[in-house]
Amino acid sequence: MSIQVLRLGHRPARDKRVTTHLLLAARAFGASGAFYAGTRDPALEETMRKVCSDWGGSFSVEYAEEWRRAIGEWKGRGKVIHLTMYGIPLRRAIHAIRADPSEKLVVVGGAKVPGEVYGLADWNVAVTSQPHSEVSALAVFLHELFEGREMEMEFEGARLRIVPQERGKRVEGKAV
Amino acid sequence: MSIQVLRLGHRPARDKRVTTHLLLAARAFGASGAFYAGTRDPALEETMRKVCSDWGGSFSVEYAEEWRRAIGEWKGRGKVIHLTMYGIPLRRAIHAIRADPSEKLVVVGGAKVPGEVYGLADWNVAVTSQPHSEVSALAVFLHELFEGREMEMEFEGARLRIVPQERGKRVEGKAV
Repeated sequence: MSIQVLRLGHRPARDKRVTTHLLLAARAFGASGAFYAGTRDPALEETMRKVCSDWGGSFSVEYAEEWRRAIGEWKGRGKVIHLTMYGIPLRRAIHAIRADPSEKLVVVGGAKVPGEVYGLADWNVAVTSQPHSEVSALAVFLHELFEGREMEMEFEGARLRIVPQERGKRVEGKAV
Repeated sequence: MSIQVLRLGHRPARDKRVTTHLLLAARAFGASGAFYAGTRDPALEETMRKVCSDWGGSFSVEYAEEWRRAIGEWKGRGKVIHLTMYGIPLRRAIHAIRADPSEKLVVVGGAKVPGEVYGLADWNVAVTSQPHSEVSALAVFLHELFEGREMEMEFEGARLRIVPQERGKRVEGKAV
Protein backbone atom coordinates (compact mmCIF):
# COMPACT_ATOMS: atom_id res chain seq x y z
CA MET A 1 0.00 0.00 0.00
CA SER A 2 1.52 3.28 -1.08
CA ILE A 3 1.17 6.16 1.36
CA GLN A 4 1.86 9.81 0.72
CA VAL A 5 1.70 12.57 3.31
CA LEU A 6 0.40 16.11 2.77
CA ARG A 7 1.56 18.70 5.28
CA LEU A 8 -0.71 21.77 5.26
CA GLY A 9 0.24 25.36 5.96
CA HIS A 10 4.02 25.18 6.28
CA ARG A 11 5.62 28.47 7.39
CA PRO A 12 9.41 28.30 6.97
CA ALA A 13 10.40 30.59 9.85
CA ARG A 14 8.10 29.06 12.42
CA ASP A 15 7.67 25.46 11.31
CA LYS A 16 11.01 24.47 9.84
CA ARG A 17 11.97 22.03 12.58
CA VAL A 18 8.53 20.55 13.16
CA THR A 19 7.95 20.03 9.42
CA THR A 20 11.41 18.48 9.07
CA HIS A 21 10.63 16.12 11.96
CA LEU A 22 7.27 15.34 10.37
CA LEU A 23 8.75 14.45 6.98
CA LEU A 24 11.53 12.42 8.60
CA ALA A 25 8.94 10.50 10.61
CA ALA A 26 6.91 9.94 7.43
CA ARG A 27 10.00 8.44 5.78
CA ALA A 28 11.14 6.37 8.78
CA PHE A 29 7.67 4.89 9.31
CA GLY A 30 7.10 3.78 5.76
CA ALA A 31 5.46 6.55 3.74
CA SER A 32 6.65 6.75 0.12
CA GLY A 33 6.80 10.52 -0.05
CA ALA A 34 5.30 13.80 1.04
CA PHE A 35 3.87 17.01 -0.32
CA TYR A 36 3.86 20.19 1.67
CA ALA A 37 1.65 23.22 1.19
CA GLY A 38 1.98 26.72 2.60
CA THR A 39 5.15 28.63 1.81
CA ARG A 40 7.82 27.04 -0.35
CA ASP A 41 10.97 26.23 1.64
CA PRO A 42 14.09 25.27 -0.33
CA ALA A 43 16.07 24.69 2.90
CA LEU A 44 13.55 22.06 4.01
CA GLU A 45 13.73 20.34 0.62
CA GLU A 46 17.53 20.39 0.74
CA THR A 47 17.59 18.89 4.26
CA MET A 48 15.35 16.06 3.12
CA ARG A 49 17.39 15.46 -0.03
CA LYS A 50 20.53 15.18 2.08
CA VAL A 51 18.90 12.71 4.50
CA CYS A 52 17.66 10.51 1.66
CA SER A 53 21.05 10.56 -0.02
CA ASP A 54 22.79 9.56 3.25
CA TRP A 55 20.25 7.09 4.60
CA GLY A 56 18.82 5.61 1.42
CA GLY A 57 15.40 4.82 0.08
CA SER A 58 13.36 6.78 -2.42
CA PHE A 59 11.27 9.11 -0.24
CA SER A 60 10.15 12.08 -2.33
CA VAL A 61 9.32 15.61 -1.17
CA GLU A 62 7.31 17.98 -3.35
CA TYR A 63 5.84 21.39 -2.86
CA ALA A 64 2.07 21.56 -3.44
CA GLU A 65 1.20 25.13 -4.30
CA GLU A 66 -2.52 24.54 -3.87
CA TRP A 67 -3.53 22.01 -1.25
CA ARG A 68 -7.13 21.87 -2.53
CA ARG A 69 -5.93 20.77 -5.92
CA ALA A 70 -3.49 18.25 -4.39
CA ILE A 71 -6.30 16.64 -2.40
CA GLY A 72 -8.71 16.86 -5.33
CA GLU A 73 -6.28 15.13 -7.70
CA TRP A 74 -5.69 12.45 -5.09
CA LYS A 75 -9.36 11.71 -4.70
CA GLY A 76 -9.36 10.59 -8.32
CA ARG A 77 -6.99 7.72 -7.57
CA GLY A 78 -7.05 6.89 -3.89
CA LYS A 79 -8.34 7.71 -0.42
CA VAL A 80 -7.70 10.64 1.88
CA ILE A 81 -7.10 10.32 5.61
CA HIS A 82 -7.00 13.46 7.75
CA LEU A 83 -5.32 13.17 11.13
CA THR A 84 -7.14 15.34 13.67
CA MET A 85 -7.75 15.05 17.39
CA TYR A 86 -11.46 15.65 16.65
CA GLY A 87 -11.87 12.55 14.48
CA ILE A 88 -12.78 8.90 15.02
CA PRO A 89 -10.40 7.02 17.34
CA LEU A 90 -7.55 5.33 15.48
CA ARG A 91 -8.38 1.91 16.83
CA ARG A 92 -11.94 2.18 15.55
CA ALA A 93 -10.91 3.37 12.07
CA ILE A 94 -7.72 1.44 11.37
CA HIS A 95 -9.23 -1.88 10.31
CA ALA A 96 -11.29 -0.32 7.52
CA ILE A 97 -8.30 1.74 6.38
CA ARG A 98 -6.00 -1.30 6.33
CA ALA A 99 -8.61 -3.34 4.46
CA ASP A 100 -8.91 -0.70 1.72
CA PRO A 101 -6.29 -1.50 -0.94
CA SER A 102 -6.18 1.92 -2.62
CA GLU A 103 -3.32 4.41 -2.34
CA LYS A 104 -3.62 6.76 0.59
CA LEU A 105 -2.92 10.42 1.20
CA VAL A 106 -2.48 11.26 4.89
CA VAL A 107 -3.25 14.94 5.47
CA VAL A 108 -1.61 16.53 8.49
CA GLY A 109 -2.55 19.98 9.65
CA GLY A 110 -0.53 22.99 10.43
CA ALA A 111 -1.70 25.71 12.80
CA LYS A 112 -5.18 26.22 11.34
CA VAL A 113 -6.81 23.53 9.26
CA PRO A 114 -9.59 24.84 6.98
CA GLY A 115 -12.93 23.23 7.86
CA GLU A 116 -13.21 22.07 4.26
CA VAL A 117 -10.52 19.43 4.89
CA TYR A 118 -12.85 17.51 7.23
CA GLY A 119 -15.37 17.20 4.40
CA LEU A 120 -12.82 16.20 1.74
CA ALA A 121 -11.33 13.39 3.84
CA ASP A 122 -12.59 9.82 3.52
CA TRP A 123 -11.60 9.34 7.15
CA ASN A 124 -10.95 11.88 9.90
CA VAL A 125 -8.82 9.93 12.35
CA ALA A 126 -7.85 10.85 15.93
CA VAL A 127 -4.57 9.45 17.23
CA THR A 128 -5.91 10.06 20.75
CA SER A 129 -8.33 12.94 21.38
CA GLN A 130 -5.65 14.77 23.36
CA PRO A 131 -3.43 17.61 22.15
CA HIS A 132 0.06 16.44 21.19
CA SER A 133 1.91 16.75 17.89
CA GLU A 134 1.43 16.05 14.20
CA VAL A 135 4.79 14.27 14.38
CA SER A 136 3.67 11.75 17.00
CA ALA A 137 0.22 11.43 15.43
CA LEU A 138 1.66 10.56 12.01
CA ALA A 139 4.25 8.11 13.39
CA VAL A 140 1.75 6.19 15.52
CA PHE A 141 -0.77 6.18 12.68
CA LEU A 142 1.75 4.68 10.23
CA HIS A 143 3.04 2.25 12.87
CA GLU A 144 -0.51 0.97 13.40
CA LEU A 145 -1.33 0.96 9.71
CA PHE A 146 1.71 -1.18 8.88
CA GLU A 147 1.38 -3.17 12.12
CA GLY A 148 5.01 -2.53 12.95
CA ARG A 149 6.32 -4.12 9.76
CA GLU A 150 7.69 -0.74 8.67
CA MET A 151 10.41 -1.26 11.27
CA GLU A 152 11.91 -4.12 9.23
CA MET A 153 12.11 -1.96 6.12
CA GLU A 154 15.41 -1.67 4.23
CA PHE A 155 16.41 1.67 2.73
CA GLU A 156 18.19 0.89 -0.51
CA GLY A 157 21.27 2.73 -1.61
CA ALA A 158 22.10 4.04 1.88
CA ARG A 159 25.53 5.62 2.25
CA LEU A 160 25.29 5.34 6.05
CA ARG A 161 23.95 2.42 8.05
CA ILE A 162 23.69 2.03 11.81
CA VAL A 163 24.77 -1.21 13.42
CA PRO A 164 22.63 -1.44 16.57
CA GLN A 165 24.62 -1.45 19.82
CA GLU A 166 23.78 -1.97 23.47
CA ARG A 167 26.08 0.97 24.32
CA GLY A 168 27.52 3.68 22.13
CA LYS A 169 27.33 4.31 18.40
CA ARG A 170 28.40 2.36 15.38
CA VAL A 171 27.80 3.70 11.90
CA GLU A 172 29.03 1.92 8.82
CA GLY A 173 30.03 3.80 5.71
CA LYS A 174 30.87 6.97 7.59
CA ALA A 175 33.79 8.90 6.24
CA VAL A 176 35.95 9.49 9.34
CA MET B 1 4.08 1.04 35.60
CA SER B 2 5.01 4.67 36.16
CA ILE B 3 6.97 6.36 33.39
CA GLN B 4 8.74 9.68 33.55
CA VAL B 5 10.50 11.38 30.66
CA LEU B 6 13.74 13.36 30.82
CA ARG B 7 14.36 15.76 27.95
CA LEU B 8 18.04 16.70 27.67
CA GLY B 9 19.52 19.98 26.50
CA HIS B 10 16.45 22.19 26.05
CA ARG B 11 17.21 25.58 24.45
CA PRO B 12 14.17 27.87 24.72
CA ALA B 13 14.72 29.89 21.54
CA ARG B 14 15.44 26.96 19.28
CA ASP B 15 13.55 24.05 20.86
CA LYS B 16 10.39 25.56 22.29
CA ARG B 17 8.00 23.94 19.83
CA VAL B 18 9.74 20.59 19.60
CA THR B 19 10.02 20.28 23.39
CA THR B 20 6.37 21.29 23.77
CA HIS B 21 5.38 18.64 21.24
CA LEU B 22 7.58 16.12 23.06
CA LEU B 23 6.01 16.79 26.46
CA LEU B 24 2.50 16.76 25.00
CA ALA B 25 3.24 13.41 23.36
CA ALA B 26 4.61 12.11 26.68
CA ARG B 27 1.34 13.08 28.36
CA ALA B 28 -0.98 11.84 25.59
CA PHE B 29 0.77 8.46 25.39
CA GLY B 30 0.67 7.70 29.08
CA ALA B 31 3.78 9.05 30.82
CA SER B 32 3.14 10.39 34.32
CA GLY B 33 5.37 13.41 34.00
CA ALA B 34 8.56 14.86 32.60
CA PHE B 35 11.74 16.61 33.60
CA TYR B 36 13.66 18.80 31.23
CA ALA B 37 17.30 19.81 31.44
CA GLY B 38 19.16 22.53 29.60
CA THR B 39 17.92 26.10 30.00
CA ARG B 40 14.95 26.81 32.22
CA ASP B 41 11.90 27.91 30.21
CA PRO B 42 8.96 29.37 32.15
CA ALA B 43 6.91 29.76 28.93
CA LEU B 44 7.18 26.03 28.27
CA GLU B 45 6.09 25.24 31.82
CA GLU B 46 3.15 27.63 31.53
CA THR B 47 2.03 26.07 28.22
CA MET B 48 2.05 22.64 29.81
CA ARG B 49 0.21 23.83 32.93
CA LYS B 50 -2.50 25.32 30.73
CA VAL B 51 -2.87 22.11 28.70
CA CYS B 52 -3.17 20.00 31.85
CA SER B 53 -5.71 22.37 33.35
CA ASP B 54 -7.83 22.28 30.16
CA TRP B 55 -7.46 18.63 29.22
CA GLY B 56 -7.13 16.98 32.62
CA GLY B 57 -4.90 14.41 34.23
CA SER B 58 -1.95 14.95 36.53
CA PHE B 59 1.02 15.15 34.18
CA SER B 60 3.86 16.99 35.94
CA VAL B 61 6.65 19.05 34.40
CA GLU B 62 9.80 19.88 36.34
CA TYR B 63 13.06 21.54 35.49
CA ALA B 64 16.12 19.37 36.22
CA GLU B 65 19.07 21.69 36.66
CA GLU B 66 21.58 18.84 36.46
CA TRP B 67 20.68 15.94 34.22
CA ARG B 68 23.45 13.75 35.68
CA ARG B 69 21.96 14.07 39.12
CA ALA B 70 18.42 13.47 37.80
CA ILE B 71 19.51 10.22 36.16
CA GLY B 72 21.65 9.24 39.16
CA GLU B 73 18.77 9.72 41.59
CA TRP B 74 16.52 7.71 39.31
CA LYS B 75 18.90 4.78 39.17
CA GLY B 76 18.37 4.35 42.92
CA ARG B 77 14.70 3.54 42.41
CA GLY B 78 14.06 2.41 38.86
CA LYS B 79 15.43 1.81 35.39
CA VAL B 80 16.65 4.18 32.74
CA ILE B 81 15.84 3.85 29.04
CA HIS B 82 17.62 6.04 26.53
CA LEU B 83 15.99 6.47 23.14
CA THR B 84 18.64 6.69 20.43
CA MET B 85 18.78 5.62 16.80
CA TYR B 86 22.07 3.86 17.63
CA GLY B 87 20.54 1.48 20.19
CA ILE B 88 18.96 -1.97 20.13
CA PRO B 89 15.82 -2.22 17.97
CA LEU B 90 12.63 -1.50 19.90
CA ARG B 91 11.07 -4.84 19.01
CA ARG B 92 14.07 -6.69 20.41
CA ALA B 93 14.16 -4.68 23.68
CA ILE B 94 10.50 -4.08 24.46
CA HIS B 95 9.63 -7.46 26.00
CA ALA B 96 12.34 -7.19 28.67
CA ILE B 97 11.35 -3.59 29.41
CA ARG B 98 7.68 -4.49 29.72
CA ALA B 99 8.49 -7.47 31.94
CA ASP B 100 10.51 -5.30 34.34
CA PRO B 101 8.10 -3.94 36.95
CA SER B 102 10.21 -1.01 38.19
CA GLU B 103 9.54 2.64 37.48
CA LYS B 104 11.11 3.91 34.28
CA LEU B 105 12.83 7.09 33.22
CA VAL B 106 12.86 7.56 29.44
CA VAL B 107 15.73 9.83 28.44
CA VAL B 108 15.32 11.72 25.18
CA GLY B 109 18.16 13.64 23.64
CA GLY B 110 18.43 17.16 22.39
CA ALA B 111 20.93 18.20 19.77
CA LYS B 112 24.02 16.61 21.31
CA VAL B 113 23.71 13.76 23.76
CA PRO B 114 26.79 13.31 25.99
CA GLY B 115 28.36 9.87 25.46
CA GLU B 116 28.00 9.24 29.20
CA VAL B 117 24.22 8.80 28.78
CA TYR B 118 24.74 5.59 26.79
CA GLY B 119 26.62 4.12 29.75
CA LEU B 120 24.13 5.27 32.39
CA ALA B 121 21.13 3.78 30.61
CA ASP B 122 19.89 0.29 31.40
CA TRP B 123 18.65 0.08 27.81
CA ASN B 124 19.61 2.11 24.75
CA VAL B 125 16.63 1.64 22.48
CA ALA B 126 16.29 2.50 18.78
CA VAL B 127 12.80 3.33 17.52
CA THR B 128 14.06 2.51 14.02
CA SER B 129 17.72 3.14 13.14
CA GLN B 130 16.70 5.97 10.83
CA PRO B 131 16.80 9.69 11.58
CA HIS B 132 13.39 11.10 12.52
CA SER B 133 12.30 12.92 15.67
CA GLU B 134 12.41 12.54 19.42
CA VAL B 135 8.66 13.25 19.34
CA SER B 136 7.83 10.28 17.10
CA ALA B 137 10.39 8.06 18.85
CA LEU B 138 8.87 8.72 22.27
CA ALA B 139 5.28 8.29 21.11
CA VAL B 140 5.91 4.99 19.34
CA PHE B 141 8.00 3.74 22.28
CA LEU B 142 5.20 4.47 24.77
CA HIS B 143 2.56 3.09 22.41
CA GLU B 144 4.50 -0.19 22.18
CA LEU B 145 5.29 -0.25 25.90
CA PHE B 146 1.62 0.11 26.84
CA GLU B 147 0.49 -2.03 23.88
CA GLY B 148 -1.98 0.64 22.83
CA ARG B 149 -3.85 0.62 26.12
CA GLU B 150 -2.75 4.23 26.73
CA MET B 151 -5.31 5.21 24.09
CA GLU B 152 -8.16 4.19 26.42
CA MET B 153 -6.84 6.38 29.22
CA GLU B 154 -9.15 8.89 30.90
CA PHE B 155 -7.78 12.29 31.92
CA GLU B 156 -9.50 13.19 35.16
CA GLY B 157 -10.70 16.68 35.89
CA ALA B 158 -10.69 17.76 32.23
CA ARG B 159 -12.39 21.07 31.52
CA LEU B 160 -12.54 20.24 27.80
CA ARG B 161 -13.41 16.93 26.23
CA ILE B 162 -13.60 15.98 22.56
CA VAL B 163 -16.54 13.97 21.34
CA PRO B 164 -15.16 12.05 18.32
CA GLN B 165 -16.87 12.88 15.01
CA GLU B 166 -16.70 11.51 11.51
CA ARG B 167 -16.70 15.11 10.21
CA GLY B 168 -16.01 18.38 11.98
CA LYS B 169 -15.31 19.20 15.60
CA ARG B 170 -17.23 18.72 18.80
CA VAL B 171 -15.77 19.82 22.11
CA GLU B 172 -17.72 19.60 25.34
CA GLY B 173 -17.16 22.07 28.11
CA LYS B 174 -15.98 24.81 25.82
CA ALA B 175 -16.98 28.28 26.82
CA VAL B 176 -18.45 29.77 23.64
